[in-house]
Amino acid sequence: MSDTAASPTPQDTPDTPILGTLLHEGVYRIVMQQPKAMNALSRQMMSALSAELTVAAENPDVRVILLGAEGKVFCAGHDLKELTAARAEADGGKATYEAIMHQCSDLMQQIVRLPKPVIAVVTGVATAAGCQLVASCDLAMAVDTATFCTPGVNIGLFCSTPMVALSRNVAPKQAMEMLLTGESIDASTAKDFGLINRIVPRDYLDQVVQKYAEMIASKSAHTLKIGKEAFYKQLEMPLDKAYDFAAQTMVDNMMAVDAEEGINAFLQKRKPDWKDC
Amino acid sequence: MSDTAASPTPQDTPDTPILGTLLHEGVYRIVMQQPKAMNALSRQMMSALSAELTVAAENPDVRVILLGAEGKVFCAGHDLKELTAARAEADGGKATYEAIMHQCSDLMQQIVRLPKPVIAVVTGVATAAGCQLVASCDLAMAVDTATFCTPGVNIGLFCSTPMVALSRNVAPKQAMEMLLTGESIDASTAKDFGLINRIVPRDYLDQVVQKYAEMIASKSAHTLKIGKEAFYKQLEMPLDKAYDFAAQTMVDNMMAVDAEEGINAFLQKRKPDWKDC
Amino acid sequence: MSDTAASPTPQDTPDTPILGTLLHEGVYRIVMQQPKAMNALSRQMMSALSAELTVAAENPDVRVILLGAEGKVFCAGHDLKELTAARAEADGGKATYEAIMHQCSDLMQQIVRLPKPVIAVVTGVATAAGCQLVASCDLAMAVDTATFCTPGVNIGLFCSTPMVALSRNVAPKQAMEMLLTGESIDASTAKDFGLINRIVPRDYLDQVVQKYAEMIASKSAHTLKIGKEAFYKQLEMPLDKAYDFAAQTMVDNMMAVDAEEGINAFLQKRKPDWKDC
Repeated sequence: MSDTAASPTPQDTPDTPILGTLLHEGVYRIVMQQPKAMNALSRQMMSALSAELTVAAENPDVRVILLGAEGKVFCAGHDLKELTAARAEADGGKATYEAIMHQCSDLMQQIVRLPKPVIAVVTGVATAAGCQLVASCDLAMAVDTATFCTPGVNIGLFCSTPMVALSRNVAPKQAMEMLLTGESIDASTAKDFGLINRIVPRDYLDQVVQKYAEMIASKSAHTLKIGKEAFYKQLEMPLDKAYDFAAQTMVDNMMAVDAEEGINAFLQKRKPDWKDC
Repeated sequence: MSDTAASPTPQDTPDTPILGTLLHEGVYRIVMQQPKAMNALSRQMMSALSAELTVAAENPDVRVILLGAEGKVFCAGHDLKELTAARAEADGGKATYEAIMHQCSDLMQQIVRLPKPVIAVVTGVATAAGCQLVASCDLAMAVDTATFCTPGVNIGLFCSTPMVALSRNVAPKQAMEMLLTGESIDASTAKDFGLINRIVPRDYLDQVVQKYAEMIASKSAHTLKIGKEAFYKQLEMPLDKAYDFAAQTMVDNMMAVDAEEGINAFLQKRKPDWKDC
Repeated sequence: MSDTAASPTPQDTPDTPILGTLLHEGVYRIVMQQPKAMNALSRQMMSALSAELTVAAENPDVRVILLGAEGKVFCAGHDLKELTAARAEADGGKATYEAIMHQCSDLMQQIVRLPKPVIAVVTGVATAAGCQLVASCDLAMAVDTATFCTPGVNIGLFCSTPMVALSRNVAPKQAMEMLLTGESIDASTAKDFGLINRIVPRDYLDQVVQKYAEMIASKSAHTLKIGKEAFYKQLEMPLDKAYDFAAQTMVDNMMAVDAEEGINAFLQKRKPDWKDC
């Protein structure tokens, strides 16, 4: 488990790892550290994020994950130079595009399926697949100067994969306006739309986000896992099936050690001692 | 049909029925009257609510149902003492938990399937399955001091069944924040999220809610039944199937007595005389 | 392709065509011109709209469609006199109602399936199927005095087909309140609910809407087509299927001429020259 602090200087030098990570009080920060490349989701960046998320999923000391970035751009989406370079390939890039688009979709779904809460921490511009990254997290915090857009339409490449995540967070006409115009929305609008949860002044961001994440990290990891998994599953079911599934989930949850401990602690007015099982 | 007025003193005495009911001008109030037990959804409370809802569904004089509560807590969700007591059973409580969770899910779906509008009237704290009760009603009114939360995560028991109703009312990140943090939202936030329709000052609540409910009660009961049933059915269909179904519903509705009367009355600028068929 | 300007005087005279149309800079305005009939969706009006939308879909000069209306009522929904007249038929009107309801549902779905963005421009009251027309468009602009309602319940005919579109734009309790009470919401509430995108002062409406539509019209028509079609398709899929579909859509989009041109233009900091393929 890496314990590297986030890079203090926003330089995409070979000396700076592509991702910085920091584990503190159960909260694992993953920080994209390619500000000069606008933290674009190059194949290298996506591989690094996916590997780090796997590490975070498996490490029992990690209870909550923060996903942030260095620099003015949170994430600029796909790496256009990488996409363009592939045109020189024999098939005009088709196989490469298939690989990239599926890698990106897999990364987004990895976040959704990860058995721990993932919180986006947006300190700048989140655009295209970068906006999708925010939408794919369970929760999102942003500074008041953050902006969000899906501008693919401006370069002839509609943000079709970003819209999968966007349209599951935001009302249809609001998503359609972002997708058809390619224009940016500010943090306040993003909050109204349901794309982010909270706006925090930049000066207090680290402090507020850490405290907020620690609050979630203080819950039973087993309970968080049960809940997050059930949330996305039941969302795709009709009402009766969702209730059958959720009722069974509640029963299984009741039979787990942490529910017994948690309820006893509550009735005895003491702090619970989680076993995370 | 009971005509008991709501208990004037908030005491959970054996003399006070678990539910108060009152029918006035087609509006049927069902009031949970166990304030000391925080109107928890014990098996007894769920049975009483279900029975009363069945009575309300079958009584032609009942056109709209209000669901309220005595005391500072609208409803605290499952009865934790009841859940804990079942741990002493041979199977560790499993069969009891299955019975309770399914009883609760059935109660919530009974509200959704009831052929008459059900309006939650929230005068206090609505927590866990109590919050689910609000989400499961067709409409919800609340006083400005009402609060809403799904705090199961704090006791190791994720609010998995409440989230079925919550996530069908509220955007995913907003629902996830409530579920993962267990923190309360106030009435104003609940309105922004779409969990409640209106906030009413407590001093005027009875008056405003009654008038609002009477306005709905003045419509054709047959038309309300057709509409409510079709609403939840079509919501789970793809667009083309939803239109096929809704178009057929409109045709059937047009062939009913009340549509002919209603349209004639409108064209003749007079008040309709509903036959409720 | 008609190039008729919108009628200057709001009179439903035989001399005024039922629809006015105007094509300017890729933006095609379709204006309902039966203000005295409150632009009701008579069979004639629905046929005219459908025919005009087909023309707009097929004309390569049309890139974006605006749907507006003359008079104080944007659209009053079905023509109640037409519905009532059919009661004299041998079957009590049933066959006619089936034809009308399916014609209306087909018209709404034609808008959704049209390969070009359709923007409602609401300058007055949008009621019942008129409200559905707004909800069915990809985007909607309105003046601050516009109002929206689904009042069928008041005449015994629940707005069942309007609710298909409404409930896919607006949160369930908000939609239910409109449907069960039949009351109007103002433009500001409609924007909060997600039913419309923007509110524009009437004095600037034509100018603002035209400029906004031209901005969308300046994108690649091929890209808009890909994106709009994919949007509504993926919305009805579970997450994994939606990602498979959208990833393939992105690959196909990358292989199209306009994506290569758009990305090259972006990297070369010049304006793209769309081929619309």
